[in-house]
Amino acid sequence: MSLKYAVVGTGAIGGYYGGKLANSGQEVHFLLHSDYEYVKRNGLKVDSVHGDFYLKSVHAYNSTSDMPKCDVVLVALKTTNNKLLKELLPPLLHKDTVVILIQNGLGLEADLQKDFPGLNIAGGLAFICSSKIGEGRIGHFDEGHLNIGSYSCTNPEILEQVCNDLIQSGVRTQVLELEKARWMKLIWNIPYNGMTVVMNCTTANLMSDPVMVDLLYSIMLEVVHGANSVGRGRFSIPESYARDILEMTRHMTPYSPSMKLDFDNRRPMEIEYIYSRPISKAQSVGYKMTRITMLRSQLQFVEAQYLFCDK
Amino acid sequence: MSLKYAVVGTGAIGGYYGGKLANSGQEVHFLLHSDYEYVKRNGLKVDSVHGDFYLKSVHAYNSTSDMPKCDVVLVALKTTNNKLLKELLPPLLHKDTVVILIQNGLGLEADLQKDFPGLNIAGGLAFICSSKIGEGRIGHFDEGHLNIGSYSCTNPEILEQVCNDLIQSGVRTQVLELEKARWMKLIWNIPYNGMTVVMNCTTANLMSDPVMVDLLYSIMLEVVHGANSVGRGRFSIPESYARDILEMTRHMTPYSPSMKLDFDNRRPMEIEYIYSRPISKAQSVGYKMTRITMLRSQLQFVEAQYLFCDK
Repeated sequence: MSLKYAVVGTGAIGGYYGGKLANSGQEVHFLLHSDYEYVKRNGLKVDSVHGDFYLKSVHAYNSTSDMPKCDVVLVALKTTNNKLLKELLPPLLHKDTVVILIQNGLGLEADLQKDFPGLNIAGGLAFICSSKIGEGRIGHFDEGHLNIGSYSCTNPEILEQVCNDLIQSGVRTQVLELEKARWMKLIWNIPYNGMTVVMNCTTANLMSDPVMVDLLYSIMLEVVHGANSVGRGRFSIPESYARDILEMTRHMTPYSPSMKLDFDNRRPMEIEYIYSRPISKAQSVGYKMTRITMLRSQLQFVEAQYLFCDK
Repeated sequence: MSLKYAVVGTGAIGGYYGGKLANSGQEVHFLLHSDYEYVKRNGLKVDSVHGDFYLKSVHAYNSTSDMPKCDVVLVALKTTNNKLLKELLPPLLHKDTVVILIQNGLGLEADLQKDFPGLNIAGGLAFICSSKIGEGRIGHFDEGHLNIGSYSCTNPEILEQVCNDLIQSGVRTQVLELEKARWMKLIWNIPYNGMTVVMNCTTANLMSDPVMVDLLYSIMLEVVHGANSVGRGRFSIPESYARDILEMTRHMTPYSPSMKLDFDNRRPMEIEYIYSRPISKAQSVGYKMTRITMLRSQLQFVEAQYLFCDK
C-alpha cells in the first residue's frame, strides 16, 4: 500500500524532497504560500545537479483545509514559523499520520508534541545545498541525502516505508537515532549558518582562510562536547566527525546556508532552535558553549539591527 | 627649562596632543606624511569639544632627518607601522630623550627596546574620541585625557614635566604604572575596536542592544581576568572597572574606534598588539581568552578578505 504525502512548506527543502517523491510516482500534496498561483498553473521545476526534472501538474494548495488527510506530513517550514503548525496540521491528520519535521535544531519535536500529545512525530535531517531560485523553481547544487529518526512514532515501520520511497525516488536516506542525528547535523549548522551571516560571506570564503577554519573547528568541537555531555550513556560522537564535516565543506560548492539567505533577505533567523536550545541543553548538564554563545549574541545583534532598526 | 617635543605621526592622536602642547606655547616639531605640504602652508586646525584652536604656523617636516634632536618624542603612529621606528627615531634622539609610545596594546615598549637597548621608553594611554576630519584638521569629539607610565626611563622626573606641560595645555593626565595602565586601556579597546568592525557599526549601536552589552561585558571580564593572571602579586584590576567602562561608553557620543576607521578604509588593523599579544601573554600564565581569541580570528578573517582578496 502506497503512502499519501503532504508537504508543508514548499521551499528549497520541501520542494526538493516532495518533488523527488512526486516525480517517482508518489501521491504528494503541496502546501504553498507565495508561489501557489504560479505552481498551480505552471508546475514545479527542480534544477538539480543529479538531473533536472519538471512536475507539470502538481497537487497545489494554499490552505491545509483544502488538502486531504495524509499518511506522512513532511514539514519543511522555517522553524521561525513553527507556531503556525498548531493551525496548519489538524486537517492533514488521521489517527496514524506521521509528521516528519525536516528542520534544523533541537527541541522541535518536543515543542510540537506539547500541542499534539498523541501525534506520531519524527525528525528529518536534510544534508543538501538547495534554494528557491525563482517562482516554482528550486535549485539543487550539492549533496542531497535525508536522514530520518523517530521521536514518538508508535508505527516505526512507516518510517521504513518512507525511506524506501525516498530511495526509490533517488534520495539517499537512512533511519537514525534522532537525538544523536540532530546533534550531528548541528555540527555543520552551528558554525556555518552563523558565521556566514556574521562574516557576510559564503562557506567557501570561510574555508579559504586557515584562521577561520581553526575557529570553525573549535566551534564544532564545542558542539561535539555539548552533544556528548547531553548524550552521556546514550550516545557519543567522535571528535573526528568534526574533521570530516570540515573536509566535506571544503569540497562543497560555495554555498550560502539558509540562515545567510534569511539574513540577506532581512527575514527572522532560526536562532532559537539552532543556537539557543543546544546552548541551554548543554548548559543544563553543566557544559558551557562559550564560542557558540558568543556567535549567538552576534546573530541576535545582527537580527535586531535589521528587524527593529531603520538604518 | 622647557622641553623640546617631537610628534611622530600627526594624526588623530599626535595631532591633538602635539597641537595642544604647541597651542600652549611649547616647542613642538611635527612629522607629517600625506598632510605635510598642506600643514606647512596652512597650519593645523583642531575642532575640539573643549574649544577649537588653530595653529597658523607649525614646525612641519616630512622626514625626521630634517628635525632637531628632541627631549620628548611622542609616537602616535599606527602600531602596524612600528617597524618604521628603527629608521625614524635616530635623528630625534639625544642621550636623555624619552620616547613615549601613545599607542594601544601590549608589548610595544619591549619590541622597541630590542632595537634601541639604551633608550628611555615610556608608554601613553590616550582616552579620547578623535579622528582626522580633513587635510590638516583634527576632530575631537569626547573625552581627552592621556595617562603616561615609564617603561625604562632612567630619568622619570622628565615624565612629571611632560605631565605638567600637558596639564598646562589643558589635557588631563597622570603618571601611572604602565603595565596595569595598558591592560586597563585594553578593557575598552579589545571589545569595542573588534566588535565595531565585525558588526560594522558604532559603539552606540553596540550599546543599544542588551544582548551585545552582555557579550561586551563578558569579553571585558576576560581582559580583567587575563590582566590579573599576568599581574598576580604586582597589580590587580577589580571586575567593577569593566562595569565602569561599559557605563562610560554608554554615555559616550556614537563613535567609530580607530580600528573601525582602518576597516572602513581597508587599511591593516592593529590586531597584533591589541589582540595577539594580550592573548599570548595571558596564555603564557595559563589563562585562556576564549572569546577574545574568537574575536581575533574574526578580525583576521575580515582583514584578509579586504587586504588579500579581490571581492
